[in-house]
Amino acid sequence: MKMKQIFAEIYGCGDLIEDNNFLIDAAKSAATAVGATVIGDHAVHYEPFGVTIIVFLAESHVLLTTWPENGLLLVDILLCNPAQDAALALDAIVNCVKPTGEVVKHEIFRVIAPTPS
Amino acid sequence: MKMKQIFAEIYGCGDLIEDNNFLIDAAKSAATAVGATVIGDHAVHYEPFGVTIIVFLAESHVLLTTWPENGLLLVDILLCNPAQDAALALDAIVNCVKPTGEVVKHEIFRVIAPTPS
Repeated sequence: MKMKQIFAEIYGCGDLIEDNNFLIDAAKSAATAVGATVIGDHAVHYEPFGVTIIVFLAESHVLLTTWPENGLLLVDILLCNPAQDAALALDAIVNCVKPTGEVVKHEIFRVIAPTPS
Repeated sequence: MKMKQIFAEIYGCGDLIEDNNFLIDAAKSAATAVGATVIGDHAVHYEPFGVTIIVFLAESHVLLTTWPENGLLLVDILLCNPAQDAALALDAIVNCVKPTGEVVKHEIFRVIAPTPS
């Protein structure tokens, strides 16, 4: 199984990216958008700024890390179900955050198998 | 600040990749290898197989996801300190796991700033 993991830097985010619950809800909305199953979540708040939250999915994870002092949210989404489109999950997060800046995307491919080929 | 996030698929892993504590210790050894500061950890065990653990760092995170049925460990390391080399952190994890298979690496660059340029 060759899976696409997607990432984004979302620039121009507002104060909500300092709010653990907002971020967890945004990650869960990403899961909902693709029909993924949430099995847990965890958040860490940095001093003086910043939050990292992870929502664990049956299909892997949505990880969000923020630099509120830069208005920046980093997104990391891995969905180990070829029927689920991580790009749609990212769209759901962008729709929650409503940034005023750019969304810069990246992707890598990961081979889930006993060997890489 | 332009940061390199690194990833790896480590193939040919043994049964230890089903052990939450082993994985958390491996991630912490990665932090130690680069002088990063651990501020928390969290693990989720899947049924019937697989574990996802995250070690939160002052500098961001080490995330490990396993498919024991494939002998596969996925690594995701982000270190937001330009003095710390994520490749050394990955080496520390490989040294813990002692895989019999390939280590396939990826990297992306993420701009930690108010705008991407």
